[in-house]
Order: sequence, then C-alpha cells, then structure tokens
Amino acid sequence: MTDFTATRALFHLPEGVIYLDGNSLGPLPRSASTRMAQVLERQWGDRLIRAWNDCDWMTLPARVGDRIARLIGAPAGSVTTGDTLSVKLFQALAAALALRPDRRVVLSDTGNFPSDLYIADGLLGALGRGLSLKVVAPEAVADAIDDSVAVVMLTEVDYRSGRLHDMRALTWRAHAAGALAIWDLAHSAGAIAVDVTAADADFAVGCTYKYLNGGPGAPAFIHVAPRHADVVQPILSGWLGHDAPFAFERAYRPAAGVERMRVGTPPILALAVLDAALDAWNDVDMAALRAASIRLSERFRAEVEAHCPMLTLASPRDPHARGSQLSFAHPQAYAIMQALIARGVIGDVRAPDILRFGFTPLYLTEDEVVRAATILAEVLATDAWDRPAYHRRAPVT
Amino acid sequence: MTDFTATRALFHLPEGVIYLDGNSLGPLPRSASTRMAQVLERQWGDRLIRAWNDCDWMTLPARVGDRIARLIGAPAGSVTTGDTLSVKLFQALAAALALRPDRRVVLSDTGNFPSDLYIADGLLGALGRGLSLKVVAPEAVADAIDDSVAVVMLTEVDYRSGRLHDMRALTWRAHAAGALAIWDLAHSAGAIAVDVTAADADFAVGCTYKYLNGGPGAPAFIHVAPRHADVVQPILSGWLGHDAPFAFERAYRPAAGVERMRVGTPPILALAVLDAALDAWNDVDMAALRAASIRLSERFRAEVEAHCPMLTLASPRDPHARGSQLSFAHPQAYAIMQALIARGVIGDVRAPDILRFGFTPLYLTEDEVVRAATILAEVLATDAWDRPAYHRRAPVT
Repeated sequence: MTDFTATRALFHLPEGVIYLDGNSLGPLPRSASTRMAQVLERQWGDRLIRAWNDCDWMTLPARVGDRIARLIGAPAGSVTTGDTLSVKLFQALAAALALRPDRRVVLSDTGNFPSDLYIADGLLGALGRGLSLKVVAPEAVADAIDDSVAVVMLTEVDYRSGRLHDMRALTWRAHAAGALAIWDLAHSAGAIAVDVTAADADFAVGCTYKYLNGGPGAPAFIHVAPRHADVVQPILSGWLGHDAPFAFERAYRPAAGVERMRVGTPPILALAVLDAALDAWNDVDMAALRAASIRLSERFRAEVEAHCPMLTLASPRDPHARGSQLSFAHPQAYAIMQALIARGVIGDVRAPDILRFGFTPLYLTEDEVVRAATILAEVLATDAWDRPAYHRRAPVT
Repeated sequence: MTDFTATRALFHLPEGVIYLDGNSLGPLPRSASTRMAQVLERQWGDRLIRAWNDCDWMTLPARVGDRIARLIGAPAGSVTTGDTLSVKLFQALAAALALRPDRRVVLSDTGNFPSDLYIADGLLGALGRGLSLKVVAPEAVADAIDDSVAVVMLTEVDYRSGRLHDMRALTWRAHAAGALAIWDLAHSAGAIAVDVTAADADFAVGCTYKYLNGGPGAPAFIHVAPRHADVVQPILSGWLGHDAPFAFERAYRPAAGVERMRVGTPPILALAVLDAALDAWNDVDMAALRAASIRLSERFRAEVEAHCPMLTLASPRDPHARGSQLSFAHPQAYAIMQALIARGVIGDVRAPDILRFGFTPLYLTEDEVVRAATILAEVLATDAWDRPAYHRRAPVT
C-alpha cells in the first residue's frame, strides 16, 4: 500500500511553490542533508581513506544499483551506477554494436533526446566501419527495423511530448530481426511501471535526478541483461570495471557481470545522496504510483483544456500512451512559463513552443495541480505573460 | 607568501591521526559541510530547477576549471571539470588520435597507472585501424618516440615510486617527432609546480580527490591546449558539450574551446565541494609548496633510513626527481601498513610490496612526519606487524 501523504513528508517543498518540474530536477529529500553530513564528517572526515573499506564505499554503486533495479524490473546485480547518462549510453551502444559486428545501422527516432543522438554520432564517427545512425519518426520505428539494424536505441518517454514507446513490442521486433535494443529510461524510471525483464531489453540506461530525486547531476545507471553481462567488452575499460582493480595488473580483465560497466572512482558524495533519495521508494508500488500519476495528469489536462483554450495539447490524449508529463503548445511558451514561475507554479519549456509539466505523486497533490491550472488560466486570460522580463531568455531553459 | 599554519586550520584532521595518504584521498576541508548545506538547502531545496540559472550551476564546471588551471599553469578558459579521470583520459586520447590520423602507435610506459593503460586498450580495441599501445619502461620512453607515434600518453608522477617524468623534455621530443603529448596529472596537481603551458602539453587530465582534497570520487579535470581546443572532435559528444545545449538541435555542433569536453549534466554537489576545497589554494605559491613538500619528504626519508634499515627506498633519492610521495619496499608491506594505521599513522600500500607515504604541506607538519617515522621504526623493530589481523586483506588497498 503506497501512502503518498507519507512520501510527500519526505521532501523539502518550498512554501508557495507548486512544483511541476520533477521530471527535470526532483526536489530535495529531507534525509539528504543528514546523510550528506554523516558522509562528509563521520566517513570522509573521520575515517579518511579507511572509509573505502569501513564504510563500504566501494560497493555503493552496486547497492544503489540494486535499489534502482527494483524500480525498473531488473534483477538484483544487473544495474550499476555512476558517471552520467550520456556516458552510460555510450557504453551500452559500444557494447551492443560489438555484439552485432556484421551489422551497420543504429536505429533511433526524432523523439529521442538530442544528447542520445549526439552520443551515437560521436561513437559511430569514431568507429567508422560504415556504421550509420538512422533516425526516423517515432511511429516509423517498428517498420524500420530490418536485418541491417544492429541496435535499436530509443528513449521510452519522449522528453517533449511525453509520448510512450511500447518497449516490449519494439524490443520483440528488434530481436525478431536479430537486432539488440537499448532503452533510455530518463523519463521512465520512477515515473511509470517499467519492466526491463518482461520487455527483454538488452541494455537500459537512465538518469536519477528527475523522478528519482537524486540531485542536480546525480549519477546515472546502466542495466545490462544478464545474458550479455559476462560477454560484453567495455569500451570505457576503467580500473573499477576490472576484476581486481587493486591488483594493478597490466592487462584489463573485466569484472563479472554489470560491474564491468563501472569506469572510474565512484562519486561517493553524490551516490550517498541518491541512496538517501531512494528511501522514498521503499514502500512504493509502481502500479499504484502510475495510477496516481494518471489521476494527476488527467485532472490537470481536464482543467487546462476547460480553462485555457489558447493552449494546444502536445501530448497523447490517452494517458496510457504517455509518461508522467503533459505538454501544451503555444507560440509564447517561454514568456508564459516565466509568468507562471513568477506566480509559484514551476514547469519548464522545450524549444520551440512547448510548455511542459511533470506529475510526481510522491509529493504532488491533486489540489495542487488544480491550483496550478487555475493560475495558468489567469496568466493566459490576462496576458500577464506579455512583459519584457518574461521574454528575456535565461541560459538554461 | 604561503602560510601553511593557516591552510592547516582549513582542514578537519581527526585527533590521533598522522595523515600520510593525502596522495590517495585528501582530508575534508572544514568549509565543505557549510558549502554543501547551502547547496542542498538554499539552492537545490529552495530554488529547485531555477538554481541552474539563479545559482550559476551551468558555469560551475568552467569556474572550478579556472581555479585548477592556475595550479597547473594553464590559461583561464582551458580547463573544464566533470566525469572521472578515466573518462577524461578517454576523451583526450580519442581527440589526440584524431589529430594524427596517419599514425598508429600510442606510446606509454610501465609506470603509468594501470587504468590509463586499460582505457587506451579499450579505445584502441574499439577503433581498430591497426592502432596499438606500446608500453616501454619509463626510462625508455624518450628513445621510443619516433615518427610512428601518434600520441605519447604518460602520467607525470609514478603512482608507486613517485618517479617524476620530465614533462617539458618529453613533450618537446614528442612534438619534434610529430606526435602529441597527453599528461595525466593525478599525482601532480596540487603536489608539485606544474606548468602545462611551459611544457607545451597538448592535453592534460587529472583527478581532484588527492592533493586537491575534493572528496571521494570528486570530478576530474581536462585541459586542452588552446591551439587544439577549437579543432578537436569530441568522441563523447554529449549535449553539454554542444554549442547550444538547450536549442535541442538534431546535429551536434561542438561548443567553443574546452567546453566541448563537457559531456552530461554536471555533478553539482560534488563540484560545489571541490570548489570549496580549492579555497585552500587561494594564496598558495606552488614553488613554496614544492619546497615545503621536499622538506617534509626529505626529513621523513632521513628518519626512516636512519631507523628502519629493513626498508628499501623505492623512490628516487633526488627529491627533484620525484613527486610529493615516498615509497619503501618490504615483503610484508601490507601487514606493516595495517599495524601502522592501527597506531594512527595512515599511508597505503601498492602491490606487491610498496609502503607509500604522501606529503601534503597544506596540512602536514615536519613534527608529524618525524613522529610517523618513529612509530614506523617501532612497528618494524618489534615485529608488531606480525599479527593475523594485519595480514587479513581488505577489498580496497
């Protein structure tokens, strides 16, 4: 039984703010400060280098990985954490390509996060060998999977529209064509009920600063299907992915399983905060979370559509066809969002014209989403957004 | 004028400990806790997503990079921070190889940190093209640089012996042969007076959790010589190395200069702690630091050699030929170090038989190194190390 009143109490939520941007950066878990003080003062401060053993720092990436594994339907021991999502995706893609040496195409879609496509460009450009990245429309992916495709590389939830791919069907299709599937779960982990095992995904990667509330730039995760984990050769063959890092052998011998996807020294401070943030998920049933998320987003959609006729829904209308966000298009999206933020309702924008709102049942109530829609309607009805200050672009959107 | 009494007061140094392992993990700067609390509560907690703009998070990697630049003789704007050293080295090596497409050999030495060699193995294995890693003895590097060599990839200070390469001479030799030079400054930055500009290094990378006291797994840094910075094509082409990350363009266009070596979302919490740690360096003159470091290590060497005849010096005797550490060999190095640590003197060991001690004038006094040597002599003279508990290996050495 998931008690969202209890989980809400675990977060620091500033007075006067309705936070609809947990899909971009989750809020501060109240336990983070205590945990960080403990790691700083009692572990690093008092134990110094000894903390690597005394405080089990070296196993922290795997322990945090196991907690994330549960949220994405992965078996224990199949997820490790560290680096950034871009780096973890690079590792997954290189590993997948090496498992399909006779094929030349990486297939992705225009709904993928640009960084994922950039990472593929960078890797394929360096590898040469006639490899190419084919980017099709999201709805054209299934039909584009043929026996030239080495890897289907997709983000499950579109960062702009929230449109949800059918992970299971597309992975099945990839496998039927002899290809592998890599899933980016950036907008899935902690947002919807993910089951990488049922979907038979080959690799999954994700970030933890959105729905998992790990903090700005929190470590990423990577899942490697157990059938591949002892086979893949890491391109980023760093010492902590070595079977015996402290033997300082000349030759790289990959560690067993997903541990070989570790690279450098783990970011202990950030991992500790992420570990604390994951406490909020201990009693969360993902099906209950998804149901609550749909209730919130459907209520918001209904209110906005009733009171904001000048906005166009830019997400699938069917809540089961989208992740835990809603997008609306308006030519003045940027200024509207600034006006909204000035009134305490925080969402974000995505170029060129998308207002984006995330729904996070762990700490967001239905009452809040109704109030947020009311304030949005007021901003729009009074043209309150049309002030010079609201048009002035900040570096980060 | 560097006042080391003042810098010592900036660190949390546990009672009863003499810390000679700052070359592995520097101690906690007292300001870290305050800074972290501020970032957690006032920035992330109160400002949420707005902190990316309000609190200048997006420029933090460059601002921290500039502070490190000063310590390694690099111009402002030529260093960025993030990821781990292994990842930064991977980027540097891929970039350097692409600048020398007609050459096939990466030259390194047996004194390099194994992870650096592993990273080269992983990259070269993936790239194919007949590329190979040639590993020679440290003293054979200069003569091995010929016109087959694309990149000379070295760590300036040997992690085991402390032996110091002549960065300037070897870089000159590399350039004379048409090769590029990548320097790993893991045991140099904050340890000795580094001048990558005078040495004309093409790339330099390093970690910040040793002499720079950034904390366990703190972000790494990379310097790209300005002559290359707008030319290199990043293999890890993540969105934050894009010229306009928030335009979400389909095509990757690298940012100007070293900013293109950024990859994913920056690790704000860890960078903030590193930034706080770098305050200790504000008034430090690197020549004065080096002189103090030599005084400390020479005093320790003299004491140990006078009172511990069973130990063999495993570092260059000439202090100008080594970094800021001293190593001694003994077949029972592991057990001896455990006995020493049990008595409050913390160093570390490196397989198979090296006792390793780091000298860090920011917070270490001559009195302490004399006491440490006395305790070491006692442990050895009484065979106090020969207990079962001291032979039991911990996972991390």
